[in-house]
Amino acid sequence: MKIFYVYAHPEPKSFNGALKDTAIDALQEKGHEVKLSDLYAMNFNPVLNAGDFTERKKQDVFNPFLEAIKAVKTGAFSPDIKEEMGKVRWADLIVFQFPIYFTAMPAIMKGWIDRVLAPGFGFNPVTNSAYDTGLLKGKSAMLVTTTGAPKEMYSEGGAHGDLNKHLESITHCVFEYMGMKVLPSHIIYEASSMSKERGTEELEKYRKTLFDL
Amino acid sequence: MKIFYVYAHPEPKSFNGALKDTAIDALQEKGHEVKLSDLYAMNFNPVLNAGDFTERKKQDVFNPFLEAIKAVKTGAFSPDIKEEMGKVRWADLIVFQFPIYFTAMPAIMKGWIDRVLAPGFGFNPVTNSAYDTGLLKGKSAMLVTTTGAPKEMYSEGGAHGDLNKHLESITHCVFEYMGMKVLPSHIIYEASSMSKERGTEELEKYRKTLFDL
Repeated sequence: MKIFYVYAHPEPKSFNGALKDTAIDALQEKGHEVKLSDLYAMNFNPVLNAGDFTERKKQDVFNPFLEAIKAVKTGAFSPDIKEEMGKVRWADLIVFQFPIYFTAMPAIMKGWIDRVLAPGFGFNPVTNSAYDTGLLKGKSAMLVTTTGAPKEMYSEGGAHGDLNKHLESITHCVFEYMGMKVLPSHIIYEASSMSKERGTEELEKYRKTLFDL
Repeated sequence: MKIFYVYAHPEPKSFNGALKDTAIDALQEKGHEVKLSDLYAMNFNPVLNAGDFTERKKQDVFNPFLEAIKAVKTGAFSPDIKEEMGKVRWADLIVFQFPIYFTAMPAIMKGWIDRVLAPGFGFNPVTNSAYDTGLLKGKSAMLVTTTGAPKEMYSEGGAHGDLNKHLESITHCVFEYMGMKVLPSHIIYEASSMSKERGTEELEKYRKTLFDL
């Protein structure tokens, strides 16, 4: 399989860094082709703005929706966006790994979604291309994430509520919206206060999950 | 009242720009004191990283949680974060205005939350300061947002589901988590395909909402 691994964590020596290294090793060992976008290492710009387009349809007022719909046809996206779109097109499966910041993605990954999975590329409201007719149909997507808080806090009835419900704004409203099949999210709770033993176990568990893909 | 208005949109001449201008005028006319953070205009950096701290507790591995908990005591946050924290401390009410990107905040605003509402400042898991004992208790918060998609799509049973549910990861898991009282979100659906007349009506409706605060 062709696997595109999108990863966001500010510290390579973190548990997230070890998870990512484990994943890349396991996937390659299994014979998959892997491309990695390490957003912090790439210094990826997460802020959608007028500079995302090398040509503008409307000069006076910047309307990101209109510009993206046009840029998909003309190729007028900035080079960093084009590069990432190329990896998305290439992939059979896209894995997104990040630590939970306030029940959601860190800004650097949210901005990757805002800028790369643009209207006209991942979905198109003008032509009604979404969900069953989403433009990334045929691909799969998977979230891999770590929390600081314990599982109870992130469960139905817990203080924050079920984390999987919060993640639906990504799994359902982004991935399924664009026609992708969603694999079960791999969530590691309380990762920040983990013993060394549990850390090793979690890495092994994750390696197995990826081996069984 | 002291009102801190946090605003994110890439185009000043957009409907969001008009909403923000309407808000600042209305609030000042009503006699409130207002501070504005226009994140795009400020070129606000949304990427949490080691540069957020002017001194480090742990040099070898960057752990944002530990560094933030310490920096609240020592003042070791970078100047841009300190500036925003000052406005939060000052305010009675914080208004967050942004366009919905994929049922959530644009990256530039998510990053404001990631960096400014840091552990030890807005909440503190070490001392169990959250929800009823959240560190921003006594303040209120309000979301003001626009969507491209129609209300049906963002309702219970609609393709995306109830937008207010998605926004709970901000209203509940950020604002209430930090002890703030949450005012009803002001949502304007289908803002991108609005007639001039409806635009004027929506601005007037928003002005009234703010006058009645």
